[in-house]
Amino acid sequence: MNPDTLAMAFVGLYYETFDKSRADLGSLYRQGSMLTFEGVKKKGVEAIVAKLTSLPFQQCQHNVSTIDCQPSGAGGILVFVSGSLQLPGEQYPLKFSEMFHLLGIPQGSFYVLNDIFRLNYA
Amino acid sequence: MNPDTLAMAFVGLYYETFDKSRADLGSLYRQGSMLTFEGVKKKGVEAIVAKLTSLPFQQCQHNVSTIDCQPSGAGGILVFVSGSLQLPGEQYPLKFSEMFHLLGIPQGSFYVLNDIFRLNYA
Repeated sequence: MNPDTLAMAFVGLYYETFDKSRADLGSLYRQGSMLTFEGVKKKGVEAIVAKLTSLPFQQCQHNVSTIDCQPSGAGGILVFVSGSLQLPGEQYPLKFSEMFHLLGIPQGSFYVLNDIFRLNYA
Repeated sequence: MNPDTLAMAFVGLYYETFDKSRADLGSLYRQGSMLTFEGVKKKGVEAIVAKLTSLPFQQCQHNVSTIDCQPSGAGGILVFVSGSLQLPGEQYPLKFSEMFHLLGIPQGSFYVLNDIFRLNYA
């Protein structure tokens, strides 16, 4: 699978899972994975899932605007996403950007080694 | 230098150089460096500098809002920036986000291996 195709497939899977069954995101991380969410740092599957499932909203809808991808010097790919996030009770969506470093695993799949998320406030 | 300190120092240097003497950014890249600027991909110092110096504005002012940093599995660090960009003749600044993978070199300095930039339009 070429990097751009993998990036698009991953981004689709990630936000669909986030919006529908957030606890299932754990399958995309490993023990060495890092998440920085709005400046809060977490490491490892359990801490990352605990953070993502404790966010102060139950429902959300990510709408992806752009997906950029580059090969990483570490192997795998860097994926950079911009888009908007619709939260319940909010009139306007919030803009966000997020980056991932995806690493392949021998079985042909991949996981998230690095994940940094930021809202882009007005 | 710890990663957060390096990230802050790099971000300060990068945007100060960008805003004051953009052509000098070449010293921060190497031949294997990659830039994706608003979806346009460039590789290598010359192509990257040519892209950055040909942007359709002469003056600009980056204002950084957030800097996040994680160690990369490839060595070096991943730096994720959000902020705003004031262009001449524009009433309002444009929001942007940008990521870098910085790699160290034996002399104790570092260079940009990966660079992805996006404006976050309203």
